Amino acid sequence: MPNHVYKKIEITGSSSVGVQDAIENAIARAAKTVHDLRWFEVVETRGHIEGGKIAHWQVTVKVGFALED
Amino acid sequence: MPNHVYKKIEITGSSSVGVQDAIENAIARAAKTVHDLRWFEVVETRGHIEGGKIAHWQVTVKVGFALED
Amino acid sequence: MPNHVYKKIEITGSSSVGVQDAIENAIARAAKTVHDLRWFEVVETRGHIEGGKIAHWQVTVKVGFALED
Amino acid sequence: MPNHVYKKIEITGSSSVGVQDAIENAIARAAKTVHDLRWFEVVETRGHIEGGKIAHWQVTVKVGFALED
Amino acid sequence: MPNHVYKKIEITGSSSVGVQDAIENAIARAAKTVHDLRWFEVVETRGHIEGGKIAHWQVTVKVGFALED
Amino acid sequence: MPNHVYKKIEITGSSSVGVQDAIENAIARAAKTVHDLRWFEVVETRGHIEGGKIAHWQVTVKVGFALED
Amino acid sequence: MPNHVYKKIEITGSSSVGVQDAIENAIARAAKTVHDLRWFEVVETRGHIEGGKIAHWQVTVKVGFALED
Amino acid sequence: MPNHVYKKIEITGSSSVGVQDAIENAIARAAKTVHDLRWFEVVETRGHIEGGKIAHWQVTVKVGFALED
Amino acid sequence: MPNHVYKKIEITGSSSVGVQDAIENAIARAAKTVHDLRWFEVVETRGHIEGGKIAHWQVTVKVGFALED
Amino acid sequence: MPNHVYKKIEITGSSSVGVQDAIENAIARAAKTVHDLRWFEVVETRGHIEGGKIAHWQVTVKVGFALED
Amino acid sequence: MPNHVYKKIEITGSSSVGVQDAIENAIARAAKTVHDLRWFEVVETRGHIEGGKIAHWQVTVKVGFALED
Amino acid sequence: MPNHVYKKIEITGSSSVGVQDAIENAIARAAKTVHDLRWFEVVETRGHIEGGKIAHWQVTVKVGFALED
Repeated sequence: MPNHVYKKIEITGSSSVGVQDAIENAIARAAKTVHDLRWFEVVETRGHIEGGKIAHWQVTVKVGFALED
Repeated sequence: MPNHVYKKIEITGSSSVGVQDAIENAIARAAKTVHDLRWFEVVETRGHIEGGKIAHWQVTVKVGFALED
Repeated sequence: MPNHVYKKIEITGSSSVGVQDAIENAIARAAKTVHDLRWFEVVETRGHIEGGKIAHWQVTVKVGFALED
Repeated sequence: MPNHVYKKIEITGSSSVGVQDAIENAIARAAKTVHDLRWFEVVETRGHIEGGKIAHWQVTVKVGFALED
Repeated sequence: MPNHVYKKIEITGSSSVGVQDAIENAIARAAKTVHDLRWFEVVETRGHIEGGKIAHWQVTVKVGFALED
Repeated sequence: MPNHVYKKIEITGSSSVGVQDAIENAIARAAKTVHDLRWFEVVETRGHIEGGKIAHWQVTVKVGFALED
Repeated sequence: MPNHVYKKIEITGSSSVGVQDAIENAIARAAKTVHDLRWFEVVETRGHIEGGKIAHWQVTVKVGFALED
Repeated sequence: MPNHVYKKIEITGSSSVGVQDAIENAIARAAKTVHDLRWFEVVETRGHIEGGKIAHWQVTVKVGFALED
Repeated sequence: MPNHVYKKIEITGSSSVGVQDAIENAIARAAKTVHDLRWFEVVETRGHIEGGKIAHWQVTVKVGFALED
Repeated sequence: MPNHVYKKIEITGSSSVGVQDAIENAIARAAKTVHDLRWFEVVETRGHIEGGKIAHWQVTVKVGFALED
Repeated sequence: MPNHVYKKIEITGSSSVGVQDAIENAIARAAKTVHDLRWFEVVETRGHIEGGKIAHWQVTVKVGFALED
Repeated sequence: MPNHVYKKIEITGSSSVGVQDAIENAIARAAKTVHDLRWFEVVETRGHIEGGKIAHWQVTVKVGFALED
């Protein structure tokens, strides 16, 4: 079995809906330009507040993908 | 543009529904007494278990707001 | 009042649905063999990606329970 | 059961006696102005040295209390 | 000399007396069911407050013990 | 010598000039409403970028002050 | 596909040979009593020195295994 | 309002002048090839010493920028 | 002397042989597409277990390289 | 007022009595060879267990002292 | 090329002027007694406040130097 | 049994061979001038890259030794 090498990039997804949607937006966007995404790790969850309510959730994830040999 | 100063307070919201509801409860409560809330950062997610099920979610957030000049 | 002693174990729940479901799966499984679960603390949220979408969420929690005297 | 919201404040107690006394001083002082204190978490233990001996212990705790609805 | 393998478990002792008593309670309880305890490391010190005073100290320790070959 | 108790608050100063100015702004603002400020600890340095240049520095500090007996 | 739940335990392997041998000893010992080991994470590397040379390497790993349904 | 996705990259600027200049150099260089830089966070400050004096400051920042849809 | 700017990327090398081989694989792969690699920092060491033995070591490193002016 | 420079050293005190005694032993020993000790910070609390009881407490502190000009 | 060994010491410089001056004071003082200083890493930035203004900056750095063979 | 006091120093060993050799070099060098070395803890592993290959490994360890009474 070959010895794969992976790269991890750090991206922040935002969403007015919630944490999970913000993560899915981030990964969907990454999948447009990077093939072979394998895993993600949540590193920070925060958001903006407007008028006393959460306007945007912002979730930062590290996303790993396999580099081609 | 003026040089704003912000204060961050740490509050814990609880909810029997879930993480997001606990955060929204915390921010709704803070908005009752603090004006001009701007952002939040999740710092801890935990909860109580009763009878083998999650009874309450407890999410601690730091909330930032602008101080008036 | 007696001086209780608690043990904390670290378990990882997985789910194709989301973060909350993964945590509930982990706690439901722990409740099968451990009585008197009291609280949990989320320590890591990550997941696997397949075909550019999240296939499984994996959430690691520490779960505390009372030891009998 | 209502969904309580808690606030955590960070205070540093000092004592010439020891760690435990410094924490108790901090909590006693907080109890003068804040009602419904619920829990504390030790975040830092340090102190001043004079003449080769510990002159003051300084222990920083986060203290949580329930916010009224 | 054989290459020992150790296991570390995480337990939380409580006490109305203080930090040291809480740790000793935790270790005494662990010693009832685990033989050959070797060392401990304090990982968290916290407690509950009632009526403006500390009602219980809660100290979490990791305890290491040798596994039999 | 009395056993003082200190409170630490977390504030974020901003400045278009630099790190030091942002910290000084934060402390000057805190000094308007809190007496007896004693020390500060830098906890985060960040900023906004506009047009490829730093528009605002944002430095978060914890500021300690003595509580009156 | 079922939603697996995993447990993570923390074990310390020792070896007079080196880091890798200490980890392999720890995992070999765990495999004697736990089935279905899946992954490990190194959390601490240390050791004892005698006569100015390393006498034992001690490497602590978290080891994850699947819990049966 | 669309749900933006941001990428964070980690760069280290150096300067013989000081911390602020090292950060500005890092951001100026990033702005040459990346459009729409939005914010930065300082993650490490260090430097080289020659002849008992600081020869180069080296400051590592994470820089966030918006990904085009 | 010019003020160099460096970029740090995070990559994970795998190997069935050991830690050092996993790191060397990661760096050899990075060197195929990035010139002027300067330094690396180990950030995580983990691996997969199959049949009670380590099947793959996975070591994550940050790798720094000079950006051309 | 001159700009003092301080050095911090890391020492571990042990005691069969408890945490506070271990810290006091460490500082008393440091005071034998270093003048002008100013402050300490606790960085780790651990200990050895023999026969199911704590045999020695081991507390690591950083101790700061003023360097002469 | 020989395999150098370096020692890192932790020192705190103070200054009424600012962060950079405090670091330079620390390194200048270290250079009086230690030869072959090579690099430094900032580990903590704090200071004292008097009369609502920063009276002294206190910056702790780790400084590395080569040990002679 | 006397209450020993230990000092911990931080040293960085380098090696063109690998991690283990770098640690052994560091400890061998420390043993030249410090008697009664007892234990070490790895705190950082990094290295320099030249021509796409690892030229030097640099491993930082804390080393503890007993202070004479």
